[in-house]
Amino acid sequence: MSQTDAKSGHEAPRRSAPSASYSFTVRLKIIKQEGRGLSKVVSAIADAGGDTGDINTPRVEDAFVVRDILIYASDAEHAALIEKKIRELDHVEVIAVSDMTFKMHLGGKIKVLPRVPINGKRDVLSMVYTPGVARVCAAIAEDPSKAYALTMKGNAVAVVTDGSRILALGNIGPLAGLPVMEGKAALFCEFGNINAVPIPLATQDPLEIIKVIKAIAPAFGAVNLEDIASPGCYLIEDTLRRELDIPVIHDDQHATAIAVMAGAINAARVTGKRLRHMKVVVCGVGAAGMACCKMLIAAGVRNLIGFNVNGAIYKGAPNLTEQEKWLSENSNRRAFKGSMQDALKGADMFLGLSVAGALKVEWIKGMKDKAIIFALANPKAEVAPEEAEKLDNVAVIATGSSAYANQVNNALVFPGMFRGALDCRLKEMTEEVKMAIAKALAAVVSRTQLHEEYILPDAFDPAAHKAVADAVVKAANELGLSRRPDRKTSTL
Amino acid sequence: MSQTDAKSGHEAPRRSAPSASYSFTVRLKIIKQEGRGLSKVVSAIADAGGDTGDINTPRVEDAFVVRDILIYASDAEHAALIEKKIRELDHVEVIAVSDMTFKMHLGGKIKVLPRVPINGKRDVLSMVYTPGVARVCAAIAEDPSKAYALTMKGNAVAVVTDGSRILALGNIGPLAGLPVMEGKAALFCEFGNINAVPIPLATQDPLEIIKVIKAIAPAFGAVNLEDIASPGCYLIEDTLRRELDIPVIHDDQHATAIAVMAGAINAARVTGKRLRHMKVVVCGVGAAGMACCKMLIAAGVRNLIGFNVNGAIYKGAPNLTEQEKWLSENSNRRAFKGSMQDALKGADMFLGLSVAGALKVEWIKGMKDKAIIFALANPKAEVAPEEAEKLDNVAVIATGSSAYANQVNNALVFPGMFRGALDCRLKEMTEEVKMAIAKALAAVVSRTQLHEEYILPDAFDPAAHKAVADAVVKAANELGLSRRPDRKTSTL
Repeated sequence: MSQTDAKSGHEAPRRSAPSASYSFTVRLKIIKQEGRGLSKVVSAIADAGGDTGDINTPRVEDAFVVRDILIYASDAEHAALIEKKIRELDHVEVIAVSDMTFKMHLGGKIKVLPRVPINGKRDVLSMVYTPGVARVCAAIAEDPSKAYALTMKGNAVAVVTDGSRILALGNIGPLAGLPVMEGKAALFCEFGNINAVPIPLATQDPLEIIKVIKAIAPAFGAVNLEDIASPGCYLIEDTLRRELDIPVIHDDQHATAIAVMAGAINAARVTGKRLRHMKVVVCGVGAAGMACCKMLIAAGVRNLIGFNVNGAIYKGAPNLTEQEKWLSENSNRRAFKGSMQDALKGADMFLGLSVAGALKVEWIKGMKDKAIIFALANPKAEVAPEEAEKLDNVAVIATGSSAYANQVNNALVFPGMFRGALDCRLKEMTEEVKMAIAKALAAVVSRTQLHEEYILPDAFDPAAHKAVADAVVKAANELGLSRRPDRKTSTL
Repeated sequence: MSQTDAKSGHEAPRRSAPSASYSFTVRLKIIKQEGRGLSKVVSAIADAGGDTGDINTPRVEDAFVVRDILIYASDAEHAALIEKKIRELDHVEVIAVSDMTFKMHLGGKIKVLPRVPINGKRDVLSMVYTPGVARVCAAIAEDPSKAYALTMKGNAVAVVTDGSRILALGNIGPLAGLPVMEGKAALFCEFGNINAVPIPLATQDPLEIIKVIKAIAPAFGAVNLEDIASPGCYLIEDTLRRELDIPVIHDDQHATAIAVMAGAINAARVTGKRLRHMKVVVCGVGAAGMACCKMLIAAGVRNLIGFNVNGAIYKGAPNLTEQEKWLSENSNRRAFKGSMQDALKGADMFLGLSVAGALKVEWIKGMKDKAIIFALANPKAEVAPEEAEKLDNVAVIATGSSAYANQVNNALVFPGMFRGALDCRLKEMTEEVKMAIAKALAAVVSRTQLHEEYILPDAFDPAAHKAVADAVVKAANELGLSRRPDRKTSTL
C-alpha cells in the first residue's frame, strides 16, 4: 500500500503504484558516455516515479547502444510524464514507444480453433464436415438434447453486452466494450475451461436485446449478460430467465453480490460479528449494489440502510425505482432518512459500490469497533485504503483493486459459477444457488488462513473456482435444478 | 470409382466406397481358436463389403483376446449389416461399438482460447482485463476503426444459419444444423486462419434474422450466411449488404457459384470449347443454381436453359419467382419450353444442383461431343459417374463428392474469400470480385496439370486458398472496394 511519491524526491501528485496496466516499452538510442548512459535513463525513470522492468539490447555500435526498456507507470498521464523526462535527457534519442497493453490487444484477444485439428487429414474432414456430419445433425434433429454432448452448446457461454455500462467508462457502446468481453472470455477459459464468445450488441433497447438473445441462444449452454445498465438489465434478465431454458446471468449483479457475500461472511467471522446483529450501510444501490443488499438480507442482515444519489432509501421516499421500493420495504425498518454520516454512526459495515470519495475518513470514526469497510468503487475506492487503515476502529478493508489486500473480485465467482451451471445443465440461477456459492467461496479460506487482510481467496487460486463450481452442482441437485442429476461434482 | 460390391461375392446392393464418414470401431472379445480368430473376423468384414482399418489389442488372456477394430462402411445401413455379420460369428462377443464420427463430435468441434494465454500471470491479466483494458476501450470509443486492430473484429466471421436448409437434410432447424456450422468454423481455421463463430438462430423469419444479424455485427469483420433457404436468403443478404458496413455473403450461393465457374473455365479449356459458344443446361435453379447461372452468363455463356421442378425457365412462363423471372429474361433467348432431354440435345454442358437421378444416361447421349457433366447433387449425384463415364461423348465429369475426380467443393472458395475480405476490409462482395476469384482459382491448375480428371485444385492445396484470398484483395484494390489499400496481397 505504499505510494510511489515516497520514492521520488519531487512533490509529485498522489499516485497509485506503477503497474503492468500502464506499462510501456521505449526503444532508445543511447549515445555512449563514460559508461553511464543507461544508468542515467534508469535514474530519470525512477525520479519520475516509474519502475523499470526488463531491459533488452537489440543493437550495440561504437557510438551508441539501442535499448528496449520496459517501464511501469501509474496511469496514462504518469506514463506521458516519464516519457517526457526521458526525452529531456541530452544523450538519448527516443526511437519508439510501445504501450504493452495495446500491444497485447493487437489482433484481438481470443481465437477459435477446432477441437479436433484437421491438419490436412481427409478422413477427419469427412467426419467433422460433410458427408459425415449429416448423421450427427440427423441425430440432434431427432433428439435435441443430444446437442449438449455433440455440439459446442454443452460448454459454451455467450458474453453479451449492449455497451451501456462498460466498467467505469459508462455508455461507450458495444464496439468499444468488446475488449472487456474478450478479456472476460479469456478468463472464462483460464479459470473455468469454458468456451466463451463475446457478443456485443448494436442495440440498447431491452426488448430488442431480449429478442436477439433468444435468437442466438441455440449454440450456447448459458448466457452471461455483461455491463448492461439498469433498469434495462433487470427486464432483460427476468424475461430471459422465464423464456429461455438455459441459465441467463447478469454477472455484474450476481457474481459481485456473491463475492461480497462471501467476503462479508468471512469479515464477520474474523471480527467475531454476526450478520443478524450487524448494521450495514450500503452506498450505491444500482444493479450490483441492489443484488448485494438482497443477498445480505437473505443471509440474515436485519439492519441495512441503502443510499442512492438522493440519500437514504426508506419506505415512502419519493422517486424510488421498483427495485428501490423493494429495498425500502425489506430494509431500514425504522425508516432512517438522515445523512450517510449519521447512518454510519454505530454501523458495523460500510459497503460502497459507488464512486471515489463517497466515504469520508471522518465518517468512519463514528462506526463501531472492528468496522468492516468494503470500498469497491473502480478504478478508485470510495475511500483511500491507506487513510482508512490508520483508524483504530477499522478491522477489515476490502476494495475492488488487486493493489490492496482483500480484493473483492467477481472473477472469483463467474468462471466457477458458469462451469457448474454448464456441468449440471442448470435450469436457473436462483437465490438459493447463489447463497450456496457464497458460503462455499467463503469456506475456501480456512480457519488458520483467515485474517483481517485475507478474507477472500485469490482469483488465481484453483481451489476457489472448483469450490464455486462444485457448489453450483451440489445445490442444483439438492434444489431439483439439475438436468444432470448423475453429476455430483463439477468437471473442474 | 470402383464399387465395393466387386469385392464381395454376394449380391449386395449397389453402394459407394466405404469411407471414414461411416467408420466405426468394434471392441471384440475373440475366443482363441487355432490362431485364426481375428482372420475370420476380417474376412467377415470383407465379405460384407467393409474395409478394415487399424486393429488394436487392449487385452490378451489365455482363453481370449480383446481387439479394437476400425471398420469403414458405405453408409449407416451398411455399417449395421457389417456389425450383424460380426455378431453372427460363434467365436466372437461384441463388447462395444463406437461410431467414429459421433466420437469426433463429442464435446463439440470448436474451442475458444485466449490469444495471449494468462497462465497464472497477474501482469498479463491486468493488461487483458481490468484495469488495463479500459484504456483500449477508451481508444476504440474515440476511434471505432481501431476495433479492427485491437479486437477480434479484424479476423472474425459469424457463421449464421436459421437451419432452414441444412445440407441435403432440409429444414431441420438451427440446433440440428449446428454441427455443420462448427465443421465450417473448423475449415475457416484450417484453410483461412480465421476465427469463425457458429451462430445458429432460433428464428426463420427473414426480417427477424436481418435484425438479429445487424445487432450481433459489431464483433465481426464479415458474416457468412449458411444453409438458409430461398427466397429468404435473398432478402436477408440484399438487405444486410445495404445496411451493414461489413461483407455479408451467402456462401451456398456465391462460393458454390465461384467453384462452378472456375470448374467451367477449366472444363472449357480442357475440351477446347469457348464459354460464349457453349450451350449449357442447368437443372435446379435454387439459390446456388441461380448464382451459378448469373456467373456463367456474366462470363459470356449466351445459350443457357435453366430448369426448375416445373420445367424450363422461359420468358412468360407461369409462376416464376423474382429470380427466375430475371433468368427468363437473361437466358433461353429462344424461349425453349420442352423437356430436359430435348434441351440436352446438342448441349455442351449439364450443370445439376438438384437431386440424384435427375439426369438419365440416355439423355447424355444426345449431348455434343466432349460433353461436360457437373452433377453436383449431394450426397448422390444427378447421374452415377460410373455410368456417365462409359459414354464416348463425355469428356469431363465433376461431382460434389470427394469420392470421385473433379470435386466441385465450396471449401475451395470460402476460406480464401473471407480471408481476403478481412485482410482488405472489403466493403462489399460484388459480382466483379467473385469473377476475379473464379479466374484466379481456375488458374491454380497449370496448363501441364490440366486434365479431364483434374479441372480444379484440391481443397487441401494451400495454393488454392492463397490464390482466392489474393484475388479478393487485388480486385478490391482495383475496384475501390478496399478499406486497406496499403494491403496488396492477403495474409495467407
